Amino acid sequence: MFEAKIDALVLRECIESITAVVDEGKLRVAEDGFKLRAVDPANVAMVSFELQRDAFDDFRFEKGSDAEATTESAAATEVGIDFNKLHGILGIGGSAEVNLKLDEQAQKLFTRMGSLAYTVSLLDPASLRKEPKVPELEFPVQVIIETDEFRRTIRAAEKIGDHIMLGVDGEEFYMEVEGDMDKLRLGLRKEQLIHLTPGTLHSLYSLDYVAAMSKGMSHAENITLNLGKDYPLQVDFEVADGKGKVSYLLAPRIESE
Amino acid sequence: MFEAKIDALVLRECIESITAVVDEGKLRVAEDGFKLRAVDPANVAMVSFELQRDAFDDFRFEKGSDAEATTESAAATEVGIDFNKLHGILGIGGSAEVNLKLDEQAQKLFTRMGSLAYTVSLLDPASLRKEPKVPELEFPVQVIIETDEFRRTIRAAEKIGDHIMLGVDGEEFYMEVEGDMDKLRLGLRKEQLIHLTPGTLHSLYSLDYVAAMSKGMSHAENITLNLGKDYPLQVDFEVADGKGKVSYLLAPRIESE
Amino acid sequence: MFEAKIDALVLRECIESITAVVDEGKLRVAEDGFKLRAVDPANVAMVSFELQRDAFDDFRFEKGSDAEATTESAAATEVGIDFNKLHGILGIGGSAEVNLKLDEQAQKLFTRMGSLAYTVSLLDPASLRKEPKVPELEFPVQVIIETDEFRRTIRAAEKIGDHIMLGVDGEEFYMEVEGDMDKLRLGLRKEQLIHLTPGTLHSLYSLDYVAAMSKGMSHAENITLNLGKDYPLQVDFEVADGKGKVSYLLAPRIESE
Repeated sequence: MFEAKIDALVLRECIESITAVVDEGKLRVAEDGFKLRAVDPANVAMVSFELQRDAFDDFRFEKGSDAEATTESAAATEVGIDFNKLHGILGIGGSAEVNLKLDEQAQKLFTRMGSLAYTVSLLDPASLRKEPKVPELEFPVQVIIETDEFRRTIRAAEKIGDHIMLGVDGEEFYMEVEGDMDKLRLGLRKEQLIHLTPGTLHSLYSLDYVAAMSKGMSHAENITLNLGKDYPLQVDFEVADGKGKVSYLLAPRIESE
Repeated sequence: MFEAKIDALVLRECIESITAVVDEGKLRVAEDGFKLRAVDPANVAMVSFELQRDAFDDFRFEKGSDAEATTESAAATEVGIDFNKLHGILGIGGSAEVNLKLDEQAQKLFTRMGSLAYTVSLLDPASLRKEPKVPELEFPVQVIIETDEFRRTIRAAEKIGDHIMLGVDGEEFYMEVEGDMDKLRLGLRKEQLIHLTPGTLHSLYSLDYVAAMSKGMSHAENITLNLGKDYPLQVDFEVADGKGKVSYLLAPRIESE
Repeated sequence: MFEAKIDALVLRECIESITAVVDEGKLRVAEDGFKLRAVDPANVAMVSFELQRDAFDDFRFEKGSDAEATTESAAATEVGIDFNKLHGILGIGGSAEVNLKLDEQAQKLFTRMGSLAYTVSLLDPASLRKEPKVPELEFPVQVIIETDEFRRTIRAAEKIGDHIMLGVDGEEFYMEVEGDMDKLRLGLRKEQLIHLTPGTLHSLYSLDYVAAMSKGMSHAENITLNLGKDYPLQVDFEVADGKGKVSYLLAPRIESE
């Protein structure tokens, strides 16, 4: 049994952070809130999402008594959701609060925004990509940057090239994109950032993926970039006023020299 | 002889209420104002439009003396107008008032907005669809609803399906649309509406038509929905601050069971 | 050696006035500022652009000592620029000031907006169209008009036809466009204009070109139209708060009677 109330804008922000990487996924609903981990169709990007139960105005969850739930995984319910569909409807509701209710028997999610009720069939979890394992990664460098500055640079970069280099050179963080005739570079010194681990390394990423991710983080004030040398990029940020956490993981592109 | 002045925004609102159903039509100009009745090319929707002469800042009409006008119809002039063209120009004029002048001899309508003069040839009435007869209809149920709520629901419905059901169930009015995987339903109780005739009935309509109509009513605060069982829908609303009236009539879709 | 600082909005306004006619061109940088003259690919429209050095917050220029610069032309540097590219990046910088720096050796222009550095390779001047000669023209009539009124009329005209007539009839200036069924005419008497030379003449122009030009002048309050009988149109206006000047020249269309 799951039933909850949540601010419509908070739910929208959460869904946008997911749809930046995947259209659909398996949401785990448990006593302590929501969790999701999903990988994009090309297997290049991953999103990990967590929302605490206190991000909700009301949150009730009980695992069906038929299943003797003792292990952690058994104490959760997996719900296959088309997040894109849900997002489209949330944008129009015109209501401040959303009520969610799960009907496991009928495999449906009921959503109510004021007088508007939206019912969507759950996706068969077997039809969804398997939840990815989070690889064990160690990032030598962390950079905390204002989201607006990051997003503005990505928007400019998209006019120039297809790949973006993120790197650290001493006490400077940089983002760099090269076109046939031109080059754009954002360089921020330690004191212009919220945090920087000094170092000398960089990696190259597909700009399409970074641009999609940058849309998912638009409500966060700051983001943390976890970087290595020719290494995946991990971007962490908060949603729901700090009551939710999102991590994006993106595989690097190999530089052709 | 016809010559008039009218607020540019009022004229725009009127034309938008017409172009929601038809691009062109025969406008009847008479001593008491404007009247129009036109049916869409597919013969599925009809618009009836009336604008009183006191909606104008100035209104002068005289039937040519050559025609001994005694009957009501003879005392009016029929003017074939391409409303879409007129609407496009009105949007740009940048003037608060529009002057209209008819030249029956030359079959032209002169429109002046400040220093900008727009002259359009009248359409040959013979080339236009015949003015439809208004069928005799009796609607067992009336619902008066805020236009914004209706339009918001239509916008959400368009994301889901192609047909919309409008109905009354006891003291509740509802709008419902079904997709392959999902369903959206607006349910409003009597006290959430301006007016409701209780009953139990519903009809299905093509969402494309309802969506087009919902654009034509955007300046009205409330609309009246006249409903029956598997019956046409009639939507009534006011334009020009109550000095004009618009009715849309839409044929129902037969439900395939 | 060239290095300068300039307000980002002023630079954008200048570039927009150029890209209204050409995407790329040879910018002459000299001690007294910028100059450009370029003709569009179809040889129908020309832009002449000048920006004084005092439009810049800082301006340093020195002709390389290797060239013994004695003539005026030798004291300038010609720089082939893709203005469209530069414009796209300027729009996103988010900075109030732009630093420009020329590297003649490497044939690159460095642009810095806050922490964002944009480097673009200069175009080979040999690959660009030759700078056009300004024909000797004498315009019997000048009209000074508010830019907004001119632009609004052009926007309306685009909905109707492909050519626009600009003319003067006694003490009235007019713009006129004809469609198959309709006609739009702006008529302004001398007292509705900032200036008018009375006369009787008109010329016809391609609306596509006039519409493009009208985008380039959007920051100027007034424009001066220089007119003749079946004669080119010259439009003059100021940029950069009067510290820059732009002239568009457009060939007339021959009227087919």
